[in-house]
Amino acid sequence: MDSERLVELLEKVRNEKISIPRAVAQLRHLPYEDLGFAKIDHHRAIRQGFPEVVLGQGKSPEDIAAIVRAMRRHKNNILITRLNPEKVARIKKGVRGLEYHPTARAATWIGKPIKSIGKGVILVVCAGTSDIPIAEEAVLTAMMMGNRVERLFDVGVAGLHRLLENRPRLDEATVLIVVAGMEGALPSVVGGMIDKPVIAVPTSIGYGASFNGLSALLGMLNSCAAGVTVVNIDNGFGAGFAASLINRV
Amino acid sequence: MDSERLVELLEKVRNEKISIPRAVAQLRHLPYEDLGFAKIDHHRAIRQGFPEVVLGQGKSPEDIAAIVRAMRRHKNNILITRLNPEKVARIKKGVRGLEYHPTARAATWIGKPIKSIGKGVILVVCAGTSDIPIAEEAVLTAMMMGNRVERLFDVGVAGLHRLLENRPRLDEATVLIVVAGMEGALPSVVGGMIDKPVIAVPTSIGYGASFNGLSALLGMLNSCAAGVTVVNIDNGFGAGFAASLINRV
Amino acid sequence: MDSERLVELLEKVRNEKISIPRAVAQLRHLPYEDLGFAKIDHHRAIRQGFPEVVLGQGKSPEDIAAIVRAMRRHKNNILITRLNPEKVARIKKGVRGLEYHPTARAATWIGKPIKSIGKGVILVVCAGTSDIPIAEEAVLTAMMMGNRVERLFDVGVAGLHRLLENRPRLDEATVLIVVAGMEGALPSVVGGMIDKPVIAVPTSIGYGASFNGLSALLGMLNSCAAGVTVVNIDNGFGAGFAASLINRV
Amino acid sequence: MDSERLVELLEKVRNEKISIPRAVAQLRHLPYEDLGFAKIDHHRAIRQGFPEVVLGQGKSPEDIAAIVRAMRRHKNNILITRLNPEKVARIKKGVRGLEYHPTARAATWIGKPIKSIGKGVILVVCAGTSDIPIAEEAVLTAMMMGNRVERLFDVGVAGLHRLLENRPRLDEATVLIVVAGMEGALPSVVGGMIDKPVIAVPTSIGYGASFNGLSALLGMLNSCAAGVTVVNIDNGFGAGFAASLINRV
Amino acid sequence: MDSERLVELLEKVRNEKISIPRAVAQLRHLPYEDLGFAKIDHHRAIRQGFPEVVLGQGKSPEDIAAIVRAMRRHKNNILITRLNPEKVARIKKGVRGLEYHPTARAATWIGKPIKSIGKGVILVVCAGTSDIPIAEEAVLTAMMMGNRVERLFDVGVAGLHRLLENRPRLDEATVLIVVAGMEGALPSVVGGMIDKPVIAVPTSIGYGASFNGLSALLGMLNSCAAGVTVVNIDNGFGAGFAASLINRV
Amino acid sequence: MDSERLVELLEKVRNEKISIPRAVAQLRHLPYEDLGFAKIDHHRAIRQGFPEVVLGQGKSPEDIAAIVRAMRRHKNNILITRLNPEKVARIKKGVRGLEYHPTARAATWIGKPIKSIGKGVILVVCAGTSDIPIAEEAVLTAMMMGNRVERLFDVGVAGLHRLLENRPRLDEATVLIVVAGMEGALPSVVGGMIDKPVIAVPTSIGYGASFNGLSALLGMLNSCAAGVTVVNIDNGFGAGFAASLINRV
Amino acid sequence: MDSERLVELLEKVRNEKISIPRAVAQLRHLPYEDLGFAKIDHHRAIRQGFPEVVLGQGKSPEDIAAIVRAMRRHKNNILITRLNPEKVARIKKGVRGLEYHPTARAATWIGKPIKSIGKGVILVVCAGTSDIPIAEEAVLTAMMMGNRVERLFDVGVAGLHRLLENRPRLDEATVLIVVAGMEGALPSVVGGMIDKPVIAVPTSIGYGASFNGLSALLGMLNSCAAGVTVVNIDNGFGAGFAASLINRV
Amino acid sequence: MDSERLVELLEKVRNEKISIPRAVAQLRHLPYEDLGFAKIDHHRAIRQGFPEVVLGQGKSPEDIAAIVRAMRRHKNNILITRLNPEKVARIKKGVRGLEYHPTARAATWIGKPIKSIGKGVILVVCAGTSDIPIAEEAVLTAMMMGNRVERLFDVGVAGLHRLLENRPRLDEATVLIVVAGMEGALPSVVGGMIDKPVIAVPTSIGYGASFNGLSALLGMLNSCAAGVTVVNIDNGFGAGFAASLINRV
Repeated sequence: MDSERLVELLEKVRNEKISIPRAVAQLRHLPYEDLGFAKIDHHRAIRQGFPEVVLGQGKSPEDIAAIVRAMRRHKNNILITRLNPEKVARIKKGVRGLEYHPTARAATWIGKPIKSIGKGVILVVCAGTSDIPIAEEAVLTAMMMGNRVERLFDVGVAGLHRLLENRPRLDEATVLIVVAGMEGALPSVVGGMIDKPVIAVPTSIGYGASFNGLSALLGMLNSCAAGVTVVNIDNGFGAGFAASLINRV
Repeated sequence: MDSERLVELLEKVRNEKISIPRAVAQLRHLPYEDLGFAKIDHHRAIRQGFPEVVLGQGKSPEDIAAIVRAMRRHKNNILITRLNPEKVARIKKGVRGLEYHPTARAATWIGKPIKSIGKGVILVVCAGTSDIPIAEEAVLTAMMMGNRVERLFDVGVAGLHRLLENRPRLDEATVLIVVAGMEGALPSVVGGMIDKPVIAVPTSIGYGASFNGLSALLGMLNSCAAGVTVVNIDNGFGAGFAASLINRV
Repeated sequence: MDSERLVELLEKVRNEKISIPRAVAQLRHLPYEDLGFAKIDHHRAIRQGFPEVVLGQGKSPEDIAAIVRAMRRHKNNILITRLNPEKVARIKKGVRGLEYHPTARAATWIGKPIKSIGKGVILVVCAGTSDIPIAEEAVLTAMMMGNRVERLFDVGVAGLHRLLENRPRLDEATVLIVVAGMEGALPSVVGGMIDKPVIAVPTSIGYGASFNGLSALLGMLNSCAAGVTVVNIDNGFGAGFAASLINRV
Repeated sequence: MDSERLVELLEKVRNEKISIPRAVAQLRHLPYEDLGFAKIDHHRAIRQGFPEVVLGQGKSPEDIAAIVRAMRRHKNNILITRLNPEKVARIKKGVRGLEYHPTARAATWIGKPIKSIGKGVILVVCAGTSDIPIAEEAVLTAMMMGNRVERLFDVGVAGLHRLLENRPRLDEATVLIVVAGMEGALPSVVGGMIDKPVIAVPTSIGYGASFNGLSALLGMLNSCAAGVTVVNIDNGFGAGFAASLINRV
Repeated sequence: MDSERLVELLEKVRNEKISIPRAVAQLRHLPYEDLGFAKIDHHRAIRQGFPEVVLGQGKSPEDIAAIVRAMRRHKNNILITRLNPEKVARIKKGVRGLEYHPTARAATWIGKPIKSIGKGVILVVCAGTSDIPIAEEAVLTAMMMGNRVERLFDVGVAGLHRLLENRPRLDEATVLIVVAGMEGALPSVVGGMIDKPVIAVPTSIGYGASFNGLSALLGMLNSCAAGVTVVNIDNGFGAGFAASLINRV
Repeated sequence: MDSERLVELLEKVRNEKISIPRAVAQLRHLPYEDLGFAKIDHHRAIRQGFPEVVLGQGKSPEDIAAIVRAMRRHKNNILITRLNPEKVARIKKGVRGLEYHPTARAATWIGKPIKSIGKGVILVVCAGTSDIPIAEEAVLTAMMMGNRVERLFDVGVAGLHRLLENRPRLDEATVLIVVAGMEGALPSVVGGMIDKPVIAVPTSIGYGASFNGLSALLGMLNSCAAGVTVVNIDNGFGAGFAASLINRV
Repeated sequence: MDSERLVELLEKVRNEKISIPRAVAQLRHLPYEDLGFAKIDHHRAIRQGFPEVVLGQGKSPEDIAAIVRAMRRHKNNILITRLNPEKVARIKKGVRGLEYHPTARAATWIGKPIKSIGKGVILVVCAGTSDIPIAEEAVLTAMMMGNRVERLFDVGVAGLHRLLENRPRLDEATVLIVVAGMEGALPSVVGGMIDKPVIAVPTSIGYGASFNGLSALLGMLNSCAAGVTVVNIDNGFGAGFAASLINRV
Repeated sequence: MDSERLVELLEKVRNEKISIPRAVAQLRHLPYEDLGFAKIDHHRAIRQGFPEVVLGQGKSPEDIAAIVRAMRRHKNNILITRLNPEKVARIKKGVRGLEYHPTARAATWIGKPIKSIGKGVILVVCAGTSDIPIAEEAVLTAMMMGNRVERLFDVGVAGLHRLLENRPRLDEATVLIVVAGMEGALPSVVGGMIDKPVIAVPTSIGYGASFNGLSALLGMLNSCAAGVTVVNIDNGFGAGFAASLINRV
């Protein structure tokens, strides 16, 4: 329709129903959506096969259900993150076909088959069993974005043999997501073993001077292994999203 | 020589000078370097066309010169980061052919032509002119690792038109490094405009409540744009290195 | 009545019922309210058409009801901020005519028509839907103080087109309140687009390294756009109040 | 010239030298500067009588001189902030007519008379004599932006009478800038005495637990007086700029 | 020489120039290096008319009841601080004669009349109504330690007239306790008005950047008024105790 | 089975079914688990008489029960730390013979007699009664690891005589664990009295500026007594474990 | 002269040269100084025998000399704190009779004999030799304010016997100032030994996690000994001043 | 009962059943509440073969020389830590026989042969070459206290093979000191490989978010490897001292 308005204007120009200076002025004052700036288009992501994403935290079940129902019309796949089990039952009443992933604390609604877009394998590594929920959020995000994803869990640095035994799996991955709480040392060790992009995810696992993930975050930012980049504490979704972008490069 | 010991042992096995159980035991107790674990090989990086990297900060000119002279024997390219101009003259006395890059505060020694390995273009974006030294460290690192690198400088968010005018350049890049101090908002804006991996580099530029880059760092970690990952404050090298890994994926 | 005491004293002076040195002494020792220091008068605000304001947080419903009943006698309008829904029912029992605004988590009691005092329009902008409660507190405060207020919500920097499309609304405002959590980048972008006073409100929306709004607060304090000033985290009331003062200048 | 390109294109449309669909396509792909988005024009500020501003900190004298020489061509007034005395002599060699203001640590170059734009008086208040440099930066900024500015210095809260004696001056101001270090209590007291916008500037004056201005900053953000907004530590320029915007409302 | 004194004393014992009880007494009063610890007697406080103090926080009602029952045997007065109303009922079952002070969140048991020991008046000042519980803890503590205590509540710095009106009460006090949250500015203002010791108590009242009292604490530590000392956040008991010691000097 | 592969390979070497260079190559590429690196064996600890340890925090009762049942097969002793009383009943249903230690908030399952391995006595000292749960976690851990453990509780520095009276017990210990909250001064005092290793455990006991143990932690790290080392806040287990290692030296 | 104006006005009233309403109006609008608010008089302190105090830090030698010369006219004693030795020579040129105290980094000018006002003895205790400059600043301040002051230095908690040997001196003091860096434990120990007011002064002595005195500050604020109050880091002057106020109670 | 023992003893004295010297001796050895302080003897350490230790930081060369000359009289060995090279020359003038260790930034004076007291080997491990000065301070301290010390330097976690190759050296040590800056991950990895006490030393090496060693400190405190204890940032001396105490257990 944006095009329609433009075509209409240009036809007026051709038919000399409008002077050129006035046409220039109108073009300047058309609102952005009328000029149809596809480049700043918020539907951009969806056309590329990304799911629509809803941050469940801080929204009521009713609001989430309403958002999902509106989104469903476009038949796009939908990912709802940071969703407590308590809310799910109430959302499900209003939204059929919603699947809840309890470990990842996320829900999905599949409107069309997920296109396989990623080139290689994204390997999600985590240090301890308590880090698994965040790791699973990353796994689910990357899967919804069309990637093959593998898991390597519970390989923290205090038991190095567990990591060393799985070296081939590290080598075969294209991108790695490394999830760890406490001192957050695992990304440094993994980053020192391979030549692949490593996305580090600090978790809020720990107590006392872990300060809800601050210790792990600082550790990862100061990693002595080059090639490690970091996302926010507990941000499994962000890591999965960034890894997906890298896996399409 | 590691091989020699292994060969010697296996010859004893073949000649039955040693029983198989004893050979097994000896194999188990050989130190790591004797088994020659290529997988944990620190020469790995160099074989892939990476330069050797020396962190200049905290080392005396004499030490740096000695390290570089030792490295030069392998004919690898060398990158020395965080190098004050004062030290350079003294290092140059001991090392011929060293080139200093004053804006990036880094020096390079080229032993063999840099192989072009990166697939696409790495675009280094920075917010203000004061962020340029860190941006240039990223540029130089990525170049030394065989990438085509482009610059888009001084496009901070308070003058949005500068960024919008350069949209095509953002679109053409494969990986983006976005460098900003103060509130560190630029990566969020850039990350919202494109679907490429964005590596955010907070700088210590600012004063007062910028707390030497902490403000920019926190801003980037909390970016509302998915796909943004972050490195340490002023870590242009780390960003250039990570972008290079991504550009080879 | 203060005046009465003063008049009484001066009449005694005139009638020579009191010596001048004693009158001087008495004047010196009269309590402040007796000298009637209108300049330090706490009723000052109300006379100018401001509502009386009660901070609901940390007060029992009974206390709030008692305060409101006392205030009502002056027929002034009343604004109660930071009021949980649970408390409202109990307050309403004791106070007729109280209206609750659930999104703004505030209640109002209107004793007389709100005088329209503000000159221009106060535009309240917010970055995400989660920031709306704080934005609505600012809206309600500014309305209660006699301003025309408009809303521009959900225009965060990761989707810049939403903001650009609404540029004319930014241009038409006299004062802007910009509410954002996470990295708090929106005020910098808005402040760079217009030449109007911008009051930035950081919110506690976010998780991990947002540190309950600290990240947004620091981002706003370090804004690269001149003309931005900042209030406390989640302080929609303070922003609405300051914007009202500016809109009367 | 942007207009020229547009006119040229539209003339082709009228002359039917280009089909309408192709014209639509070309319009879509013109870079931003070609569409001439006056609204995002960075010369906006200058046309309104603002000076051009250069942040002196972190720039070499040579760079500053070059920037100023380039700016001078437009005959705009120029303000250089955060400029050490050491640099000034070297800048002056390359730039005639530069005036240095040592207390404000700033320099100005006047290309045309400053237009008086501000409506009322901006009063700059400061707590102690050590806060004066920051206060003077605010004074100079506001003056360069066409405001009448008055000073009320050394009226900290530990000697309340100094402030109370000057109450009329507070009442006569249109906007107030209140500068204080240490505990930063002055804006709360001033804000409680008047009904005008108060911009609080924390300074890094103090020692020990003042943590370079953090204590004053937090104090101001938590001010119990409504109507107080805050800028970054030591940001006299930002306060002067924001006060100027308010004084034009 | 200690030995000499010991030898001398023992010779006197042997020669019966001193009775054994007296020798025991002398041994007890010899300086520490020579002898026993009466001076580090934990009953010291009680002999001086102090109450016994129990910190209620973190103890079960049963434990508190047991402690109080044990203490009661000595007929000393008892003060239990930081006691939730929920616990009181359960403690009262086991301890007769316990009185609960809900505002101060403390309980007292009076075993003997409180001796009036304090010389002057301790004035407890607080900024806002939300600070009253902490102020009342200070009041109760000082009363239990034998002081005359007066209250001056709700006189925060944003409404300075309230404080100025009560100047005579400030002047008449011997020691002042000043309780404030948010920016914690009140002790500076009070300290600037009088020449008496001021004990500042920061409270956790506030939100956002008050950081649970940190802002008020820093403000008080950086007070520009000499003579102000500070206790821990919400430590009304500590302030009441210290003021009592001062009031006995 | 690792051995089997090795034996198989060596037999091929002996039978000349494989050339020596090829055998060398194969040895180099065997994955870690195939070479059976006993040195990085995670069963190491158990063989030395350590219990198996489960961190109860953040795990569901069902998960804990499952883990314990799996562990029980090896007949090793088991220690479950940070276990709320609520969870215990549900775990006990699935695991017979589990003993809960409510003060230490830990549970144990004894599969075989604890071997007495420690050489001397580990003395656990704590400052206040509120620190006892953390102290008891240390006690239980050290006991489960085969040490004689003694307790010296409630000897905080504000009542120094309690500590001095117990000097002989300090002297008799081989290793000391000193647990304290608030200002965390006890380890400095104890460390100054003896020449034994002191492990300091900060606790989260306190309020206000104790910042959940940060104050105690910093105090202990800055101890003026040499020989004091520190573990994480509330980490009684870590202190007990480290003390056990020292007691075996 | 204030009185003169008042007398003049009242005489006009008596002589009926001015109407009573006008007199009331004039009284209301007289500036504060005209009403002569002796209570808010900044000369208050000096009349009580306090010295005039100049904070030397952040002032140029010339400014300090000018201030001192102006003050000298009143013949009051003068104390200049935080004065580097470099500045002293330059100040002395302009000010005769100035005495520098290098350890306390302060200077004094004695215009009249110091009146002995304090009742008892102020004992200044410090933990280590590095804390002595701050302790001496407290000593000098208290002496200038007319107190008998004694010193007890280098009695840190890691060598407890040094403190215990000096118990009688602690007992004889009326007020104690306790200065310590590192973990700041000394005030707790001293506060537990006596029943006198203790003013704790944290110093910036230490390194690493002492964070320039933050560790000592937090330790003192969390002191388990009741009766301890705290001043800012390195604020020997503030402690000496507060102790002087207490010693006059 | 103390009294009883005292009476009993004195009666024996009177009855001459015990000689006076013996009575004196008994009085000295009575527990503290009864008697003198031999146990809190500050010469304790020296008698056990410890060196006397002087913290060089913050002391003038003249003071250090004076202290050392005084100490030398006892013929004890002396260790001066944190000593800049600039000071050494000036100290050496006043003190013969002083040896400076530039890497460890420490000096020693040997008055008598160091007794070999330590049982096993203390292994000092460090992550990067920049950590060596702190590591050498630990080495020198441990040597001065009579231990055999070995070094394993430059084995950071990003190049794990360097550590794995040296596994036997880790196994042979009795106590380990692990020194690391940046993310401080090395102690976790080392602690996971061995069953010996590990003392972790964070260093201030790093930049940006390393916050002068805070990042490494937090990482070490949150180590997932049990048995790791931590000392202050850059506190090589403290680690060496604690390791020496452990090595004597």
